[in-house]
Order: sequence, then C-alpha cells, then structure tokens
Amino acid sequence: MKKVLILGSTGSIGINTLNVIRNFPEDFEITALTVNTKIGLLEPQIHEFHPGTVVVKDEKLGMELKARIAGECNVLVGEQGLIDAAANLDYDIFVGAMVGFCGLAPTLEAIKRGKIIALANKETLVVAGELVTKLCRQYNAKLLPIDSEHSAIFQCLEGEKKDQVEKIILTASGGPFLNKTKSSLANVTVQEALNHPNWKMGAKITIDSASMMNKGLEIIEAYWLFGVKQEEIEVVIHPQSIIHSMVQYIDGSVKAQLGLPDMKLPIQYALTYPDRQANQFPRLDFAEIGNLTFFRPDFEKFECLMLAYNALTIGGTAPCIMNAANEIAVHKFLNGEIRFSHIPHIISTAMEKIENHKSPDIDAIFECDKETREFVMALS
Amino acid sequence: MKKVLILGSTGSIGINTLNVIRNFPEDFEITALTVNTKIGLLEPQIHEFHPGTVVVKDEKLGMELKARIAGECNVLVGEQGLIDAAANLDYDIFVGAMVGFCGLAPTLEAIKRGKIIALANKETLVVAGELVTKLCRQYNAKLLPIDSEHSAIFQCLEGEKKDQVEKIILTASGGPFLNKTKSSLANVTVQEALNHPNWKMGAKITIDSASMMNKGLEIIEAYWLFGVKQEEIEVVIHPQSIIHSMVQYIDGSVKAQLGLPDMKLPIQYALTYPDRQANQFPRLDFAEIGNLTFFRPDFEKFECLMLAYNALTIGGTAPCIMNAANEIAVHKFLNGEIRFSHIPHIISTAMEKIENHKSPDIDAIFECDKETREFVMALS
Repeated sequence: MKKVLILGSTGSIGINTLNVIRNFPEDFEITALTVNTKIGLLEPQIHEFHPGTVVVKDEKLGMELKARIAGECNVLVGEQGLIDAAANLDYDIFVGAMVGFCGLAPTLEAIKRGKIIALANKETLVVAGELVTKLCRQYNAKLLPIDSEHSAIFQCLEGEKKDQVEKIILTASGGPFLNKTKSSLANVTVQEALNHPNWKMGAKITIDSASMMNKGLEIIEAYWLFGVKQEEIEVVIHPQSIIHSMVQYIDGSVKAQLGLPDMKLPIQYALTYPDRQANQFPRLDFAEIGNLTFFRPDFEKFECLMLAYNALTIGGTAPCIMNAANEIAVHKFLNGEIRFSHIPHIISTAMEKIENHKSPDIDAIFECDKETREFVMALS
Repeated sequence: MKKVLILGSTGSIGINTLNVIRNFPEDFEITALTVNTKIGLLEPQIHEFHPGTVVVKDEKLGMELKARIAGECNVLVGEQGLIDAAANLDYDIFVGAMVGFCGLAPTLEAIKRGKIIALANKETLVVAGELVTKLCRQYNAKLLPIDSEHSAIFQCLEGEKKDQVEKIILTASGGPFLNKTKSSLANVTVQEALNHPNWKMGAKITIDSASMMNKGLEIIEAYWLFGVKQEEIEVVIHPQSIIHSMVQYIDGSVKAQLGLPDMKLPIQYALTYPDRQANQFPRLDFAEIGNLTFFRPDFEKFECLMLAYNALTIGGTAPCIMNAANEIAVHKFLNGEIRFSHIPHIISTAMEKIENHKSPDIDAIFECDKETREFVMALS
C-alpha cells in the first residue's frame, strides 16, 4: 500500500491522479489532498478518498471548508499549510500536480525527506532545476516525470545507459495555431487559444501549448531531468500526439513511447513504477490511426520556443524570469488585457531588463520570481 | 576483443556484419567465415579479416579455394565442416546469417557451447523453435535477434518485465504488392517480386516479403524468441519501414524502436549488446520523413500470413513443413516453374498432406524437412 500526497488535487492532473488511484484500491491510499481554492471540488474527494489531511491555500476558503466538514479530516490552510503537509505527513509518493511556480516550496520539503516525487508541475524544474536535481541526489529522492513527453523519455531510457543517449526528441502537437500565419496570431481570441486539438487540460497549460511555451518549458524540464545538453534536445511537431517523445542513441537507434493522449497513462506509470499495472484504458489501434505526421517547428512563429533555448543558454535565473513573465503574460491574455502575440514580447522584455543571477539559491529564485511578476504586472 | 564466427559471410547479412566489424577493429576479430558456394566473394574477405578458418559447404569449391589461397587460413568443407567449425573453434559470438534451414545443425553446436547466438537465420527458430529455446536455457546460450523487427522488439523489452507485455506489434512493409489486387498476383513476374520498396536483401527473403511469408516466419520467430502467445502477436502494415516493431504493455503504453531501413543497425546492436556503440550511420530526420502510415494486413490476399498463424496453432512439425514447402516453392517461382500466387497453395497442400509430429526432436525435424522438400519438388 503506497501512501500518496497530491499537491493540487482539483486540477486536471490531480483529478486524473485520483481517477487512476480509484482503479487500484488495494495499492494506494491518500494521505493528503491540497487545493488552491476549489473547496467545492475537494469536498467530494474527501468523502471518497478519506485523506487524513487536506490543505487549502486560500485561508478564508480553508476555514470555510473546515467548518463545513467538521471532524472528517484535518484541515490546514495557507502556503505554510502546504509546506507543513509536505514536511510532516506520512506518505511515500508526492504528486506535484499544482499549476505554476507555487509548487516549489512544498516540493523541496518532499525532496528533503527522500520521497518519490511524481512531478507534473514543470515550473519546479524550470525555475529551480539546478537546485532541485542537486537536492534529489543529496537526499536520494527519486524524480518521476508525469508530463506525457517526459514520461515517454523516461520509459524509453529504462534499461538503457544515459551516456549512450545522443539526442532527445520532444514531440509537440503544435497546438491550435499550427497552421496559422505568424501575423494572424495577433488577432486570435482566448476561446481559440483554449481550443487544444488533442489534450483537455487546464487554462494556463492550454495557452502555453498554443504559444508553444509549454514545449519551451518542457525543453528546460528535459534538460534537468535527463542531464542532456540543450543542443541534444530537439523539438519535432507531431500533430496527432501519439508518439509522446523519443530518445535517439549513439548507434542511431531511436526508441519512442506511444499512447492515446490521456494523462492517466503517464500518471499511472509514475505511481506504479518500476512496475506496470493492467488497466482498461482504451488501446492504440494503428490501422485506425492510419497516419502519423512530423514537421519542423517554426521558430519564427513560435518565438517562445526560442526564448526557452535562450534561457537555457543564459542559465542562472533566466528560466525563472522567463517562467514568471510567462505566467503573468498568460494571465493578462486570459483576462483580455493583451493580445496573444504580445506574450513572447513581454517575456523577452523581462529577460532583457531583469538582472540575472548565476547558481541562485532558493531565496534568490523566490526574489527573482517576485521581481519579475511585479515588473510584468506593471508593464502596460 | 570479441571473437566472431559468421555462418554465411557472403550473403546480405554476412556482408553487413563485416561492414559493421570493419568499423570496430579494436572490438572484434573474425574467428571463422563460412559460405555455401561464393568463394569468389569469400577470398577478399579472407585477405581483409584474416579468419583462422573458413568453411565452404560445397566440397568441390572448397577444395578449389584451398588450393588457391595456399596456407593463408585453414579451409574446411561440407556440412560437416560447418558443424565442426561451430563445435570446435574459439569464438564468443556466433552470427547465424545463412539463408534457409541449413543453418540449424551448426547453430545447435554453438548453443550447446553456451555461446552468444546473433540470429538472422529465422528458419532456425521457425522449424526448431521449441528445441532451440529449450537448449538455450539448458546451456545458458544467449539468443540475440538480428532481424530488424525482432531486434526492435528486443530493444523495446530492455528494462521491462516480460510478464507485463500485452502484445507484440510486428510491422510489415507490405512488400512490392501491397497495392495490387489478389487476382493480379497470379501474373506478377519474378522481376516485380524481387523489387522490394525499402530493403535490399537476398532473393529468397525478398520473395518472402512479396508473399508476406517473411512476416509469417517472423510471427513464429517472435513466438519463440519472446515467449508470447500467438494471439498476442499482431501484424500491422507500415510501408515506410521506419518503425521496426513495437511492444504494447499491460498499462496500454507502447514502445517502438525506429531507424532507417539498414540491417547494419540491428547487426551492430547484437554484436555490441548490452552496450551501444557510436557510429556514423545516417540518422532519422522525422520532419524529412514527414509521414508514417499504418494499415491492417489483408489476410485474404496474403495467404501466407494466415498459414503461419495456422502453423503455430497446429504446432509440432507444422512450421517445419510450412518453411520447407515455402523454400521449395520460392525456388520454383524464381526458376519460372510456378506462378507467384501458387506459393501459398503449395505450402497449404504440404501442410495438409504431410503427417505432423508433436514435440519433434532434431532427427524428426530433419526427417520432416526432407520429406516435405521431396513432396513439394514432386508436385507438378
């Protein structure tokens, strides 16, 4: 029986993690669930999965929930509640399913306890990859990717030697704007940007997919997860999202992991690793699919992709600045404050204007994140 | 320094094996080369690779070569020469690169010495899979597939647990007649059948690809190599021959191995296993390839495919009968004695008429092979 803490149980990844766990009542129990604000969704999860503790980041909503569910489980609140849960509760697997940067502090607590870290929260590695991977080695914490691309790479690397990897090939659907011209991106609506062709995900990551910043974040994530050089990470557009990513070895052989676009598969793999468990998910039917296509990404149109490679080249806090600027820019776009095509310009401006720090510690990262957010929010 | 014996050094696989070995002069040396008849091709191989021994199956040609090369290396002749070489010489890796059934006896000698068996000769497993795999376990010989499909599956299984395999997906190019109608197969010429779209191979295997008996043989080969049930082996048509085969696991995840259609890749993998070695072979470029397609195989048109599944169902000597009948039928087709569409009818007739033996020993297999060949040669 593995004990699981889910950081962000009411988001897309959190819900799917519970969908997986529901199928294996003998194998998993829930130690804790945490949410930002959605106590309405959390309440039925409490009734079904009986966590000993829940955490609500919004303190007022947390107190409201506490009153409502009486003694059904322990309720912690606030950012400190998240950190306390990760630092003190009894669990085996920490599922980092929160959106954005705010998952970092509790994730570091889990790492320091040598837990299994099933990581969907890519920002954790983007902003603090050097620190996180160093701490994982130091505290013997095992980092298991939940992102479908990184799970694919992780699966392809099983049984292989890392020094025999030549290249990682990240596949990208290309999102809803794959076939739009660069100039027409200025006029796309929020609704169009939220209409992802293959994946049903949260709003932030869906917009990131439309701008291809999601792939940019994944490049940086892959860099830290797999210890490859940035020139060894290639992006190829694959609109069907069937090949989830590939690894090319020094002998020219390529291994790929394939599956239907369903996050339950990589989530289950991370939870049951190093084993696989039988399930009833629909299977691939290659004759039915018929056709898998591939294109080179258009770096001119999807500027965010190049910004990510640049952030890796600069290093230090550059990925943190890129990520924070992107979070605020996406927020502004979703609020109708800026055009879609403005997102990369905002990020680029932030990367130019904000001072970079080499090998930042956790405080420097938080400071840089805060500074960037304030800078971008103040941009008109 | 690994010592290598190549059974069949002047065929397509043998030549490619030497092409690979030429790139790694520090890692491999040639203990012995064997040929059926092509002493003209063998002679420069002797000068370049300096084997201690060569074997020529044709005794007269063997004596001719012996006279010609004087004392440059030891020359053995005849079927017994092949067996003696496998049984007595000092080598680490036995490369089974001969065409057809005649590779079995020397392969068994290598197995009984617990050697690494790099097997391109699929007939060995088709006719004697039960015996060969039993002996490999008994003598702790390691069987490494060289067939591109089976190498792909073998690579996909690295780091995975065999009891977590759900299905093996063998890809098939479909050969030159993929888009022909069934009725038009009666009139195809030898030249058309020899014109494979992707692979440059020997005549026998190229005809087998055109009839899809090659895939039929591979189904049986996969059955024995990977210990799966026959209903767990699926064939999918993939005309580009880029995905060399796939494995589906019990969680629905699929792993594939991909590469350009070049036998040097699986040969090198078998020779360097469990490591991979850097090489200068051309690499895949997915954007350049653009498109991978998949179709269900047409079992009505490619009757040989169904005959192979039937042979597995019947078991015993049925695969041996199927294989021997196919070898003679292909020979007759290449000689212009029968139509292409007659091949499956001949095999089917042999499978009906010749008595089946359960769990045959080596003598029963040789007897069945001989009986089938005589039966098919006598068919008009």
